[in-house]
Amino acid sequence: MTRVDTVSSDDTIHFGSDNQAGAHPDILDALIRANTGAVSGYGNDALTQRVEERINALFERECITFLVTTGTAANALALSALCPPWGGIYCHNGAHVINDENTAPEFFTAGARQIPISGAEGKPDIEDLNRAISSAQTHGIHNVKPAVISLTNATECGTVFTPNELACYGDLAKDHHMALHVDGARFSNALVSTGASPAALTWQSGVDVLTFGATKNGAIAAEMVIFFNTRFTEDFAYRRKRSGHLWSKHRFLAAQIDAFFHNDLWLKNARHANAMAARLARGLSTVKGVTLPWPVEANEIFAIMPATLIQQLRQRGFEFYDWPATENMVRLVTSFNTADDEIDHFIRSAHQLAGGQIQ
Amino acid sequence: MTRVDTVSSDDTIHFGSDNQAGAHPDILDALIRANTGAVSGYGNDALTQRVEERINALFERECITFLVTTGTAANALALSALCPPWGGIYCHNGAHVINDENTAPEFFTAGARQIPISGAEGKPDIEDLNRAISSAQTHGIHNVKPAVISLTNATECGTVFTPNELACYGDLAKDHHMALHVDGARFSNALVSTGASPAALTWQSGVDVLTFGATKNGAIAAEMVIFFNTRFTEDFAYRRKRSGHLWSKHRFLAAQIDAFFHNDLWLKNARHANAMAARLARGLSTVKGVTLPWPVEANEIFAIMPATLIQQLRQRGFEFYDWPATENMVRLVTSFNTADDEIDHFIRSAHQLAGGQIQ
Amino acid sequence: MTRVDTVSSDDTIHFGSDNQAGAHPDILDALIRANTGAVSGYGNDALTQRVEERINALFERECITFLVTTGTAANALALSALCPPWGGIYCHNGAHVINDENTAPEFFTAGARQIPISGAEGKPDIEDLNRAISSAQTHGIHNVKPAVISLTNATECGTVFTPNELACYGDLAKDHHMALHVDGARFSNALVSTGASPAALTWQSGVDVLTFGATKNGAIAAEMVIFFNTRFTEDFAYRRKRSGHLWSKHRFLAAQIDAFFHNDLWLKNARHANAMAARLARGLSTVKGVTLPWPVEANEIFAIMPATLIQQLRQRGFEFYDWPATENMVRLVTSFNTADDEIDHFIRSAHQLAGGQIQ
Amino acid sequence: MTRVDTVSSDDTIHFGSDNQAGAHPDILDALIRANTGAVSGYGNDALTQRVEERINALFERECITFLVTTGTAANALALSALCPPWGGIYCHNGAHVINDENTAPEFFTAGARQIPISGAEGKPDIEDLNRAISSAQTHGIHNVKPAVISLTNATECGTVFTPNELACYGDLAKDHHMALHVDGARFSNALVSTGASPAALTWQSGVDVLTFGATKNGAIAAEMVIFFNTRFTEDFAYRRKRSGHLWSKHRFLAAQIDAFFHNDLWLKNARHANAMAARLARGLSTVKGVTLPWPVEANEIFAIMPATLIQQLRQRGFEFYDWPATENMVRLVTSFNTADDEIDHFIRSAHQLAGGQIQ
Repeated sequence: MTRVDTVSSDDTIHFGSDNQAGAHPDILDALIRANTGAVSGYGNDALTQRVEERINALFERECITFLVTTGTAANALALSALCPPWGGIYCHNGAHVINDENTAPEFFTAGARQIPISGAEGKPDIEDLNRAISSAQTHGIHNVKPAVISLTNATECGTVFTPNELACYGDLAKDHHMALHVDGARFSNALVSTGASPAALTWQSGVDVLTFGATKNGAIAAEMVIFFNTRFTEDFAYRRKRSGHLWSKHRFLAAQIDAFFHNDLWLKNARHANAMAARLARGLSTVKGVTLPWPVEANEIFAIMPATLIQQLRQRGFEFYDWPATENMVRLVTSFNTADDEIDHFIRSAHQLAGGQIQ
Repeated sequence: MTRVDTVSSDDTIHFGSDNQAGAHPDILDALIRANTGAVSGYGNDALTQRVEERINALFERECITFLVTTGTAANALALSALCPPWGGIYCHNGAHVINDENTAPEFFTAGARQIPISGAEGKPDIEDLNRAISSAQTHGIHNVKPAVISLTNATECGTVFTPNELACYGDLAKDHHMALHVDGARFSNALVSTGASPAALTWQSGVDVLTFGATKNGAIAAEMVIFFNTRFTEDFAYRRKRSGHLWSKHRFLAAQIDAFFHNDLWLKNARHANAMAARLARGLSTVKGVTLPWPVEANEIFAIMPATLIQQLRQRGFEFYDWPATENMVRLVTSFNTADDEIDHFIRSAHQLAGGQIQ
Repeated sequence: MTRVDTVSSDDTIHFGSDNQAGAHPDILDALIRANTGAVSGYGNDALTQRVEERINALFERECITFLVTTGTAANALALSALCPPWGGIYCHNGAHVINDENTAPEFFTAGARQIPISGAEGKPDIEDLNRAISSAQTHGIHNVKPAVISLTNATECGTVFTPNELACYGDLAKDHHMALHVDGARFSNALVSTGASPAALTWQSGVDVLTFGATKNGAIAAEMVIFFNTRFTEDFAYRRKRSGHLWSKHRFLAAQIDAFFHNDLWLKNARHANAMAARLARGLSTVKGVTLPWPVEANEIFAIMPATLIQQLRQRGFEFYDWPATENMVRLVTSFNTADDEIDHFIRSAHQLAGGQIQ
Repeated sequence: MTRVDTVSSDDTIHFGSDNQAGAHPDILDALIRANTGAVSGYGNDALTQRVEERINALFERECITFLVTTGTAANALALSALCPPWGGIYCHNGAHVINDENTAPEFFTAGARQIPISGAEGKPDIEDLNRAISSAQTHGIHNVKPAVISLTNATECGTVFTPNELACYGDLAKDHHMALHVDGARFSNALVSTGASPAALTWQSGVDVLTFGATKNGAIAAEMVIFFNTRFTEDFAYRRKRSGHLWSKHRFLAAQIDAFFHNDLWLKNARHANAMAARLARGLSTVKGVTLPWPVEANEIFAIMPATLIQQLRQRGFEFYDWPATENMVRLVTSFNTADDEIDHFIRSAHQLAGGQIQ
């Protein structure tokens, strides 16, 4: 059922989300190439096997990988494998899992609870986190059983975790016999931002499972759930099937991922999106009355602007979201196909509308 | 995670399932056409709107339609909208929902129960059905609350329900204040087989919700949940979201359905698949020792064959499934891109191997 | 909310269920004795500890025991510990878990499925059972994962399983890596009927968990979930708590069980109820037109009677249930406080109404 | 399974919880009186009917009442009737439902979410509450659908809501099309503290459903779920049954409630407990180094004390809990059978140990 009130006109310039971009042409080409002859369904095909091997090579170890279609499914399925129905999932209070996925984690875990932890720049304060976990543990069966720490990398504030930062959470998780999950809807952007290797940014820092998104970085609809810890994978295939997330024509899911990794498409796309964000941040920092609350380390820019400026920019056809954290804060997102022009057009408009430019 | 033991070689001729076929080229072309510029996500796009209008026109009434990716998701979501957690879903004991979707209906409904009813040719015996419903109702809160009758059209025996047959179940559902669901994973094949209109084969016969599959009839992964009764649609958007079945780049789901209906592609595909099945059935009926237990009315053929013949056909590279209903029964499925040659090659091989041909 | 339409008058003689009896005076006395001073809640009290030791002694081994209030809770909690959400629970098609507990097993397991198996005298046919399990296993993630065999002892047909019979199911469960559950709502009656020891009738025959009911045998509301296999008990305390089945004033639950075992009250009560059933069966077998379809081995009697006789007996103030298995079948249940007189009065009335007596 | 480490010796004086008290003798007597003859099970008895009528009279209107055994069950069942699986339940961050009932609300609602709101003296800040609700509503299907405001009266800080205060939350709930639930585990204590009528403290202030606890105020295990709004009660009987909370020998649950209301036992018990708490508060306020953070309005006293004093009081045999809100905060609870002596003994000991008394 469509609610068409927000359908935008052709002239709109979209900074609303990286999922408003279409798909990269290489991804579509891969679908066409995959469409030759009949093959077995449900992932029992050669292309799926190749993708799994690619992922093992990339992460420099044996992984257990499952492909699904949406980030919400990837996160909720991953969490359900880590957390019993009476468990607690500790995440930043601005995390996507707790703010933007309805009650998917609760649904897939059969009723586990997410506990929001505040903290600067999208990262849960580690002292508060430790306190919250310890407090629940003291209370035994009367409160949740702490089970998972879930981080988002890149964060919902447009910042990134380095391997060293991740390792602090990894150690904490280990101390409390909990698992560490990373929501990597923008993992590509975090990776190119930190310069770390996929291994360093995951299992070498204590991550047990990564949900690695391709959709926001050029795919049509393709996400990976990658387990580095086989303790959690028994029966995961049942979880995927019973939630309706096992594709029969699985090759078309695999083809997207295959193209995503081919010729470093994922890295090129992420570098471009990050570069566009940096360009936008540089420009915005020269607009009168605009402040950037957080460092721009990936492909999301958060800006506090005068209400009038926000309104006028929208009237000129720029689309972006209000962000609830603070009044007059907005979020702008760049993608693999954001053009220099679009950035520059936005900055020029902001300068004009703000009545001046900071030198 | 792939289990590659069943990956088949290039020479295999696949009668395993209609989901082993790839996608129709028109569907892929539609994706490419849809990939122009940025548009709003989550179904707030013009293409999604057009698809909804197409469906209204096709069914000659206002419908409420939701698109998802898999048949399991479509069925389980639809059932969850019709059935409370303490409800009973009555289906044929061979139905896909109870045999091939793991516990998806139980998961999505938060623990409702499916009650298997036997019956000839894939159709629940209406007397037995009535008795089972009445018996549960007599038992009040101690047993399930009968809530849904779920039929599959075309059935899991390759037969089809006519509008008149459907109406009997529709009346029964109404008498018991229950809803009528049709699993239409092969609705296209049923429709062209019966010659009925979409309206006649659904709401005019008492159907409250149809899950209408495009995947098995030429799409990549696209299924419609179509409600004819708005009583069940409140909050359905929440159900889809929390189960991870709302695509962000929704236009690519809509594009598949748009192409599916364009120029009657769906009807052409289904007619072809049905014709191939009829050709196969005619041929098989002339093979010594082979019997067809059920009329071939759509694109599935069930055959009881000597065990040796089954084995030898597989050795020659034909893929098809054993069917658990009876010993030495197999299922063969044709699709939109099954070729005459493949059928004829199969028949010729069967004749040779069976050592003769019935005139 | 009461539905008072079935509230019965004072003159009624109740053969409806053994839960229509009140509680044994010893049980009530025990509550009063337990009501001295303040003690810790939630099972951290000396009486609960004593009850656990009693149970260990009775079953001649270390057990892990949890107390709850209703049989439905006991069964559903036990099953949820044995069966994943995608699992299958195989039980007789007349079992209490599938006919009389609404969808409690589905609720507590987060959506597992019960598979009904037919069989004579309340016992699942072991060939059919094996076939159903094997068939599901062949189908992998597309069907349920067979997880539990659940038997009722005494059965819903008033018969009992001997240790040897149980062991056949135990072996089958082991072969398929499944667990064996026994619903022992009338375990006391089965035990005194077979003459077997508690150990022989449970873990020595392969039973992994027993739900052992005291309510139907003289308690107010008290049931034991007794695990013989510690593999299933991790986190069970969380399951009980989150389902609202952990009593704060737990001593009053323990006191009931303590009194139940004290001075062999449970055995005396069960022997009495069984003797009353035998007396009723002997009497009924001499009534013209009445047949007993199953041997009367515990405290339930099933009888097929002329419809007129059924109606007339009810008019005379006898309460009992129709049983859905066959037309004109009724069930009569005796309890720890059924009186000889009540039985004899029933038999005399039946003789009079049936117009004669078989010598 | 017992963890006996906290089993306390006979000399202990218990201020741990009002559920450490036993049952009032009148309640036990009522069980014995109810134990006469056989009656229909599952609530179809005259005593249950009488209890429902008592409740209607007490609340000066037609109510729909269900009896269950534990406060966790009562709360979770009530919330599940008010909140869809994708809904949000807004409560104080110190509420029992979110801190002391494991994940029961999530389990019974099939995965709804509780949103903790801070606020002084156990009452959610109404501005923050409004903001949180509005923010979720703005986010549509991506976040929870605000469905319930849940308050605890008396609160977890030992304070009480007056009818006027409740009405503010009631109005807010109405404005947002949400329901208002009150966890009344200590409703008796709140009622006698405010002096309001049952009607004024519930439906006349906008409360849709009250869980009214008898257990902490003298019963063995008996709680009422009382609906003032029939919109939520359809199928509630199914909810209770499938969660294993429908007693077969229901008269023994009804008998407890009947005695609870007979001769104003509930009011007398609550007045006594509150008086003991006031006496304890007065005494404690004269102990050096002790502060009471919140007004003592019901039967819970919170005190911040020197760590040494806490330890020494425990060594002298006083049992009470640490309270996690602040360091060195403890909670003491009085009950219907707390004796003057126990209070005075505690105060004297505190004076001695604290080395002085404030005049």
